[in-house]
Amino acid sequence: MVVVFRGASLLTGNAMIDKHSLAQDLQSLANVGSLAEGGVTRLAFSPEEMELHRRVAGWLTDLGGQVRTDAIGNLIARFPGRDNSLPAVAFGSHLDSVPQGGAFDGVVGVVAAIAVIRAIQRRGLRTQHPLEVIVFISEESSRFGIATLGSKVMTGCGDIQQWLRIQDATGVTLQAAARQAGACLDRIASARRRPEEFKAFLELHIEQGRVLEETENRIGIVTAIAAPHRRHITIEGRTDHSGATPMALRRDALAAAAELILAVERHGWAESPYQSVATVGTLTLRPGVMNVISGRVDLDLDVRGIDADSIERVVDGISSDLKGICQRRKVQARVQELTADQPVELDRNLIAITEAVCEQLAVPYLLMPSGAGHDAMNMAKITPTGLIFIPCKDGISHNPAEEASIDDIALGAEVLLHTVLKLAHGN
Amino acid sequence: MVVVFRGASLLTGNAMIDKHSLAQDLQSLANVGSLAEGGVTRLAFSPEEMELHRRVAGWLTDLGGQVRTDAIGNLIARFPGRDNSLPAVAFGSHLDSVPQGGAFDGVVGVVAAIAVIRAIQRRGLRTQHPLEVIVFISEESSRFGIATLGSKVMTGCGDIQQWLRIQDATGVTLQAAARQAGACLDRIASARRRPEEFKAFLELHIEQGRVLEETENRIGIVTAIAAPHRRHITIEGRTDHSGATPMALRRDALAAAAELILAVERHGWAESPYQSVATVGTLTLRPGVMNVISGRVDLDLDVRGIDADSIERVVDGISSDLKGICQRRKVQARVQELTADQPVELDRNLIAITEAVCEQLAVPYLLMPSGAGHDAMNMAKITPTGLIFIPCKDGISHNPAEEASIDDIALGAEVLLHTVLKLAHGN
Repeated sequence: MVVVFRGASLLTGNAMIDKHSLAQDLQSLANVGSLAEGGVTRLAFSPEEMELHRRVAGWLTDLGGQVRTDAIGNLIARFPGRDNSLPAVAFGSHLDSVPQGGAFDGVVGVVAAIAVIRAIQRRGLRTQHPLEVIVFISEESSRFGIATLGSKVMTGCGDIQQWLRIQDATGVTLQAAARQAGACLDRIASARRRPEEFKAFLELHIEQGRVLEETENRIGIVTAIAAPHRRHITIEGRTDHSGATPMALRRDALAAAAELILAVERHGWAESPYQSVATVGTLTLRPGVMNVISGRVDLDLDVRGIDADSIERVVDGISSDLKGICQRRKVQARVQELTADQPVELDRNLIAITEAVCEQLAVPYLLMPSGAGHDAMNMAKITPTGLIFIPCKDGISHNPAEEASIDDIALGAEVLLHTVLKLAHGN
Repeated sequence: MVVVFRGASLLTGNAMIDKHSLAQDLQSLANVGSLAEGGVTRLAFSPEEMELHRRVAGWLTDLGGQVRTDAIGNLIARFPGRDNSLPAVAFGSHLDSVPQGGAFDGVVGVVAAIAVIRAIQRRGLRTQHPLEVIVFISEESSRFGIATLGSKVMTGCGDIQQWLRIQDATGVTLQAAARQAGACLDRIASARRRPEEFKAFLELHIEQGRVLEETENRIGIVTAIAAPHRRHITIEGRTDHSGATPMALRRDALAAAAELILAVERHGWAESPYQSVATVGTLTLRPGVMNVISGRVDLDLDVRGIDADSIERVVDGISSDLKGICQRRKVQARVQELTADQPVELDRNLIAITEAVCEQLAVPYLLMPSGAGHDAMNMAKITPTGLIFIPCKDGISHNPAEEASIDDIALGAEVLLHTVLKLAHGN
């Protein structure tokens, strides 16, 4: 499924995107919620997120958009086409961040969308279809544990009434935070969009991984968004004195967990051809004392992939190995399923159009899965959806060190622009 | 090296130890520092430890002992023999505890020593050698990080002047705490005893492991006290997004640590015939988030044994495996040595005498190493020393659930008594 295309030369002189304005927009937004110790904090529905929404709303209004905020807080700017009875070609991303996150996650997709509108207007182009820039609210799960909230409400995924009761770490409910930010929760249903309103949705985002960098590609065209299968696993062994307990009398929960961690890695490797991955990223042990054998280990398993059968093979393989470990080591395991979502395949036609754009622009690109979730995965449920990645330095994201080069962002915006123009029949 | 002897019947009717008084003493001491939530807290130099010392000093005085407290706070009760120019046969243990510890660790050896004196006096026996009951102060390292402080001062191990500056968690120095408890630090050197003062030292202690229980022995005769070799190991990999990083691009510090943990276990097993053990009991990972591959893992390695060559093979084997892991996985490791003590072999003659006592009493016993450190290991540097274990329930120690049966304690005291009598030529 992986195709590497290396163009002979990259478009430079013919670029339609105004890199200078793009850089200015990015810089202007970077100041909001920025921290002395580096990075930015712009939690869901926070004053920082709302300030970014206000600034972007101002810019989109200046660019002639019909700007509105829906009942949950998504910002929607509509730019008429020649035939406004046609469904809109929409594109955008989000502006909130994790605590002490980077200034590129989400923001890049929003400033690129603005750059696309600016380029269309500066060249005096007209599109047949109307265009929509969408800035989703509250994409990150850090504050309330719900990711991609704005696009979930827009596409009718999940139960917003239930989520409204969730409290953040300071005891503020999602309901109170959203109200404070201006959401009109009484008419929340009005935020839901119908499939017939859209021709397509496109999102540009930083990769948040190292695949583009390592393969020296500059654009990733996402074929599917991986679904995380998550399990919380508790292994109970026996707490014993490390000095007074011979190896043969031990039931060491940490040694059992170590076997499991290597099994997780092995099954991830085995399913690599299907682009599945498997990770243990948390582990706590009790009592956690140098001279005591661990009686209990808790860890979280995160399996992701874009092929449901492959994910199942990984999860089943790990479960089977865990049983064997328990039998051999006389330890007990409890497994709690946290999530078991289905991967989201993106629209093949949109992929082909974006591929054609990259080839036309002679941009080295890669067809690749997205390991992380994005608003695009919800939009894919109501309209053909595309997700375009640009590299980020060292694959670092959700971190003050997050960085994407202005050249890569501008190139991503250029690819987005041409894809939008093809879809909206612009000229 | 392991010998199991199963007697046909255990001594009951002929017991010299007064089990009733022993149980009373134990109960009386159990109240001091006892916690509503279970267990006892009697930190080094605390009012609780001093209260126990006062009570025991009173009992030993009542039994006719010449009772004194040395400059650091060790309680010494001398009982004259027929020839007081002969070196003393000494025995005892400690009364302090870890925070929320059990009421048996240390205490058992002290109440047994009292029971031995009581039995000798009730039967009107006279020993040729004088006897000494020693209650060491501050055996546990919980408060100041120095274990077996009282016996270290008595035997001249380590640098007491340096330790005096150590602060506990509340900022109190060891010096201030010891002074408050009545120590005369100006004449600290006077606490040091000379080898010629002792014929032997014996300590009775709970096993703090499950070997006696699992092998159905009632007495453990310790052949050597293991020395911990401890290393702090840091493995640095690379922090990456768990969804966005294919298996082939990972440098997962936790997976590397998992390999190391299993290598530690394997080397421990390989040296089991030499009674070495190897444990990883702590592990922290960073960032420790479900959807992030660990960039760094810190863990502690605890290798113990009674055979220096075997310990070295374990440590070398682990080091060599760690190098291989780092090369294969492209991770870095830093290793910091924390301790590298030498094992302490106990006196073969004393072991033989105690063995003869067990055989005479038809008590099932086991020759075994001690994985944990004890005051006996310091005393072994100045006089032939023996360490006798009794089982503790499920091997649990340093825990409110710590428990030893009164029958086992009485039997241990009986073995101690007969060993003391043989050494002191009592009749």
